[in-house]
Amino acid sequence: MTKPLNIGTIGYGFMGKAHSNAYAHVNYFFDLQYRPILKAVCARSADKAKAFAAKWGYEAVETDWHKLVERKDIDLIDICTPNNTHAEIAIAAAKAGKMILCEKPLAMNGAEGLRMVEAVEKAKVPNMVWYNYRRVPAVTLTKQLIDEGRLGRIFHYRAKFLQDWTINPELPQGGTALWRLDAAAAGSGVTGDLLAHCIDTALWLNGSIDCVNAMTETFVKERKHNLTGKVEKVGIDDAAIFMGRFHNGSLASFESTRYARGHKALYTFEINGEHASIFWDLHDLHRLQYFDHRDQGIVRGWRSIHVSDGDHPYMGNWWVPGLQIGYEHSFVHQVADFLKGLETGKPAMPDFRDAYRTQLVLDAILQSAREKKWVTVARG
Amino acid sequence: MTKPLNIGTIGYGFMGKAHSNAYAHVNYFFDLQYRPILKAVCARSADKAKAFAAKWGYEAVETDWHKLVERKDIDLIDICTPNNTHAEIAIAAAKAGKMILCEKPLAMNGAEGLRMVEAVEKAKVPNMVWYNYRRVPAVTLTKQLIDEGRLGRIFHYRAKFLQDWTINPELPQGGTALWRLDAAAAGSGVTGDLLAHCIDTALWLNGSIDCVNAMTETFVKERKHNLTGKVEKVGIDDAAIFMGRFHNGSLASFESTRYARGHKALYTFEINGEHASIFWDLHDLHRLQYFDHRDQGIVRGWRSIHVSDGDHPYMGNWWVPGLQIGYEHSFVHQVADFLKGLETGKPAMPDFRDAYRTQLVLDAILQSAREKKWVTVARG
Amino acid sequence: MTKPLNIGTIGYGFMGKAHSNAYAHVNYFFDLQYRPILKAVCARSADKAKAFAAKWGYEAVETDWHKLVERKDIDLIDICTPNNTHAEIAIAAAKAGKMILCEKPLAMNGAEGLRMVEAVEKAKVPNMVWYNYRRVPAVTLTKQLIDEGRLGRIFHYRAKFLQDWTINPELPQGGTALWRLDAAAAGSGVTGDLLAHCIDTALWLNGSIDCVNAMTETFVKERKHNLTGKVEKVGIDDAAIFMGRFHNGSLASFESTRYARGHKALYTFEINGEHASIFWDLHDLHRLQYFDHRDQGIVRGWRSIHVSDGDHPYMGNWWVPGLQIGYEHSFVHQVADFLKGLETGKPAMPDFRDAYRTQLVLDAILQSAREKKWVTVARG
Amino acid sequence: MTKPLNIGTIGYGFMGKAHSNAYAHVNYFFDLQYRPILKAVCARSADKAKAFAAKWGYEAVETDWHKLVERKDIDLIDICTPNNTHAEIAIAAAKAGKMILCEKPLAMNGAEGLRMVEAVEKAKVPNMVWYNYRRVPAVTLTKQLIDEGRLGRIFHYRAKFLQDWTINPELPQGGTALWRLDAAAAGSGVTGDLLAHCIDTALWLNGSIDCVNAMTETFVKERKHNLTGKVEKVGIDDAAIFMGRFHNGSLASFESTRYARGHKALYTFEINGEHASIFWDLHDLHRLQYFDHRDQGIVRGWRSIHVSDGDHPYMGNWWVPGLQIGYEHSFVHQVADFLKGLETGKPAMPDFRDAYRTQLVLDAILQSAREKKWVTVARG
Repeated sequence: MTKPLNIGTIGYGFMGKAHSNAYAHVNYFFDLQYRPILKAVCARSADKAKAFAAKWGYEAVETDWHKLVERKDIDLIDICTPNNTHAEIAIAAAKAGKMILCEKPLAMNGAEGLRMVEAVEKAKVPNMVWYNYRRVPAVTLTKQLIDEGRLGRIFHYRAKFLQDWTINPELPQGGTALWRLDAAAAGSGVTGDLLAHCIDTALWLNGSIDCVNAMTETFVKERKHNLTGKVEKVGIDDAAIFMGRFHNGSLASFESTRYARGHKALYTFEINGEHASIFWDLHDLHRLQYFDHRDQGIVRGWRSIHVSDGDHPYMGNWWVPGLQIGYEHSFVHQVADFLKGLETGKPAMPDFRDAYRTQLVLDAILQSAREKKWVTVARG
Repeated sequence: MTKPLNIGTIGYGFMGKAHSNAYAHVNYFFDLQYRPILKAVCARSADKAKAFAAKWGYEAVETDWHKLVERKDIDLIDICTPNNTHAEIAIAAAKAGKMILCEKPLAMNGAEGLRMVEAVEKAKVPNMVWYNYRRVPAVTLTKQLIDEGRLGRIFHYRAKFLQDWTINPELPQGGTALWRLDAAAAGSGVTGDLLAHCIDTALWLNGSIDCVNAMTETFVKERKHNLTGKVEKVGIDDAAIFMGRFHNGSLASFESTRYARGHKALYTFEINGEHASIFWDLHDLHRLQYFDHRDQGIVRGWRSIHVSDGDHPYMGNWWVPGLQIGYEHSFVHQVADFLKGLETGKPAMPDFRDAYRTQLVLDAILQSAREKKWVTVARG
Repeated sequence: MTKPLNIGTIGYGFMGKAHSNAYAHVNYFFDLQYRPILKAVCARSADKAKAFAAKWGYEAVETDWHKLVERKDIDLIDICTPNNTHAEIAIAAAKAGKMILCEKPLAMNGAEGLRMVEAVEKAKVPNMVWYNYRRVPAVTLTKQLIDEGRLGRIFHYRAKFLQDWTINPELPQGGTALWRLDAAAAGSGVTGDLLAHCIDTALWLNGSIDCVNAMTETFVKERKHNLTGKVEKVGIDDAAIFMGRFHNGSLASFESTRYARGHKALYTFEINGEHASIFWDLHDLHRLQYFDHRDQGIVRGWRSIHVSDGDHPYMGNWWVPGLQIGYEHSFVHQVADFLKGLETGKPAMPDFRDAYRTQLVLDAILQSAREKKWVTVARG
Repeated sequence: MTKPLNIGTIGYGFMGKAHSNAYAHVNYFFDLQYRPILKAVCARSADKAKAFAAKWGYEAVETDWHKLVERKDIDLIDICTPNNTHAEIAIAAAKAGKMILCEKPLAMNGAEGLRMVEAVEKAKVPNMVWYNYRRVPAVTLTKQLIDEGRLGRIFHYRAKFLQDWTINPELPQGGTALWRLDAAAAGSGVTGDLLAHCIDTALWLNGSIDCVNAMTETFVKERKHNLTGKVEKVGIDDAAIFMGRFHNGSLASFESTRYARGHKALYTFEINGEHASIFWDLHDLHRLQYFDHRDQGIVRGWRSIHVSDGDHPYMGNWWVPGLQIGYEHSFVHQVADFLKGLETGKPAMPDFRDAYRTQLVLDAILQSAREKKWVTVARG
């Protein structure tokens, strides 16, 4: 028999949907002791909360997150709200002894992130941050190949996250739909939104970053603000580039933007090692490109691996070889691993501390861009 | 409020899983009046039926499909069993007034298929066959582009479905797991299993086929049979190739095999029209390749369309541009369309009659291969 | 010191250019005892012959090929004229004791081809046919991989040659520029022009073909004829499809057309063996796709081999790894091999007899399409 | 009649071969008033000079470049020697009134480059630098598309040049074959060798660069030196990354390395504009990827343009649509344009001054990497 795990979700937007879907489906595909129960969803608008609850089968709704956090029948608080609310909610939830799953980036900055880490570590509550791309099977396979030592010494790690949805200068900023364009709500622009993903993956795959040198740009300087109705200065970064050095001696080359026409969600990374290289691309997330120099010369080439076989990470739980999965499955995998972590006592990563380390890289990037100089990343 | 639609599923294998997942998913992503309820699952093994019911939340189990068909609390019978059982179950279900969703191919042959068509048409019960690939968004988009007349006169339609999972001669035939290799259960080999998909799509996209000329091959002539334990003659076709002519004058070139090393589920089609061509590939099912000769010459090229925008078929119901969906979503779409059809009175296709027409092409192919001559496809 | 080999070229069109370029190039990149000398070019129009000679440095011109064939200072006759002239010229050249290089297809049909074979074999003159694609390095590498036994038993060989340049019904037929559309000059349409290439490669890579079953189509039934100025019936095949069986038991699936919008010269082949598969595509001729099932499962995938390393066939003679060569290099390689054959006494292939065997397959295809039945290929 | 242009080539290495091939072939494919004559080749080793002359048909050899420069019968000096010799030779050749074609990078640094510019400008001799990639047809087409305004405002320009041939630490440095690894001969490592190409193209396509921020790395710190036989410190950069800003406001992201396993000569660039984006890759140099946001939404995608049609730059001079050309053709095109420039009086670019501007960017990169700060690029 499975044990129920009562979920209280805060936020009903894109991530509320992605997480709810993961909770609803994980037990169909993974054998687990725990079973998430969609207990309550919280949103300031009662109507929207009710509609979301009806759609996804949440048993109850709340309109004040404090109430949700206080409910005795909730085991886990899932934070799907804008970045500027993460800390307050998470710290309250930790004090209430709840498990916490928090959307990324963890916090508005490292200092805030540290307070969150301290809160969950003091409360000893399971905690995890939704850097979901670690659990795309091709990405997990990358980790496995690196851990097996197949790449040898690493020389280069480069990552990009390119989008094109904010090129139109008529697009407003702020409000429920566009809080990511509002510095007050989001903290930063592509740095916290997109680079954060690239950095989480990089730290996981290639270890910590020693120092960075960054530049940012805001191409559209003013946009109408949805909350005030006025044209206001844009406070976020539209694009961010940084170079740097990992502690293992490899060079970092990262870039993110929302002004790359033709790319919707082009998160790519490439790792060049002494013996082998790996490339991955979110637009074809079910494939991994692998080059192994130890292959015989005349038949050496980049291998396009269709990551859909039963011995590929997570894939034995889904369909049959050749049949691909999609974006949302990364969330299902993350929930599965979290629940497995509760069973085994080996927590699934990234936890708040891991995400705090990513936050410190983000801080260094923003400081470097501001001060136009190399910045050493603080150790977390 | 949604209306419950009580589902009785027969079979717990790969397709039982794919369909159950679709029923469980569909209302989260599509606004529909009906809501499937997983009422009962039927399997000869009570243990297996119970385990499947527990996993997917079926309320009850049956071990005799006749019982399931007779239950008053079942609205819809979903047939996920080997091909040689479809007709008997479907005809009984029709007589019992149930809606019927049947796995493909509809029947063992055209004659059997016709009896099934007559049964559902006489009973006036909603019916549909699981040719799921029509609802891969890129394939649905192809239909839309053709219907808009973008391709002009069609010259060529070619399709392949290539796999490689039966190359090992030690693989046995028959039994629960390998009934597809047993002619008694499957009727034919790749013709009914793989070409059937290609033909369903082709008839939908390009209209009916006039005549065919086919060859089949069985590369491994004998395999151990799981039911008898003895090495027995293999009765199925391992590979099938046919050429032919559509009624619209275009040429058909089709091939399927389970002996194409390196391809797991490489269903591809390409259509060449006067003005434009289209190519699709199941291994990257979220992309469509489109060439439009009317583009200006110097920038003319095959367009790789990432079918994930909100205005692409079905995609507005899922995530955001750039985030791909997977194989199982085609089943969700098919259930959504079936339920929508119940609402609107415009039945979702392909129904049994459509699938019977596909069966007639399969019959012609097998006859042509046997008799080594051109065969005109019977009209259904 | 190199020995001069005096070339007399008949025809100044596309192939005259491709061959002349090969003669002019070959000694720069290959160490050879022989050096082609562009001695004379022959064309009915003296002006055109002179212009071509000036461009390419031919020492002399002729307007009657009989004169050219009779010249004592010519060692080798290169036939670059329409198909219906090959036999007469070649037989005369053989009688005159000249080496002969003949454009493909060898002849208008097998019977004519046989007379040509008999002529060169009787005269014991070196002879070769310009099936140049054997010498694209990726294709030569394919031969090498097959000869090493890497593929194991072959199950499937499929090839296509797709073009789109005759879709416009206003395009006339016949005359100097468009003789390929005139059955009297070309013998057949895509069968002799495009399938001939596919068959030559296939016989080389996969051995002889036992039997074929073909269909052809002429989509545009009438076109203005350039020689008569009248609208006349089109006698060539616009498209041809055939299936068949190789003597090694593998299945053949071939197609060619000039009505595949979006493809300019898409010659592709794929070979599926027990252990490995290979795919090649003329549109990216410097790459070979190779899948080896013996690779470890989790990193198994199609390898995209950039055939530009020094240990790839012919490539050590050109640039450095990563720098690709183009179409015309296949002709340079063929000349290099022909000259090397003169040195070593091991003639370069395909000779007239090889090309005659291809002709017999073409005959069988056309007969099968005409008579709508399976045809056994005659042995050559 | 064509006018002879007498060429004196200094150096017989890879570039000597590429240039000689271009001179030998240009008149076969381009209608030009001038015809290059391979008059003399110069190398310190008389044997090597003679062998090269015999291979390529040079009429004479020299072993002292001063002699070559002084010869009256030479119109043009082509400098194919290591970087540290360019300035002295070029300045002497300018004084002798010769036309000069110089391999890239122009000089060891900007100051040296300026002296060379002053010399040729004072002497008023035609001059050009072999940044050949401008004349890959896909790259030339990019320039055309940008000049037509198709991209709109440019937001991003990123380029990479990745190789993997120096990963082995046993590879020595210096001497004839490996002078590129010797700082004394090469000036810098990948910066001058690879980034120089990227920068030349970028300045041409996207205008001048305002400021850069760079890092370099030498992964293998010591290598045996071929000239001394001793293990010596490696003075060149193995990898270089820089970010920066163009004067048009777009962001620059550049990287080059010889430590990217799996890439032989992966020069790529991508340009993201308001309306359209372009991507090119030297490994498939005959293709251009083009995305135009103004395409209708449902059929919008990256177009893979096979740059082989007659209306594509330079391609009307070669074969027919679908047949690709290779690396060496870029040199043929550059010679063709140079000769055309002599005819028309509109000099082909890049000339020494253009290449000097590239040199100033290289200087800024190296300074930035050394001083770990942003550097403004000097105006040239």
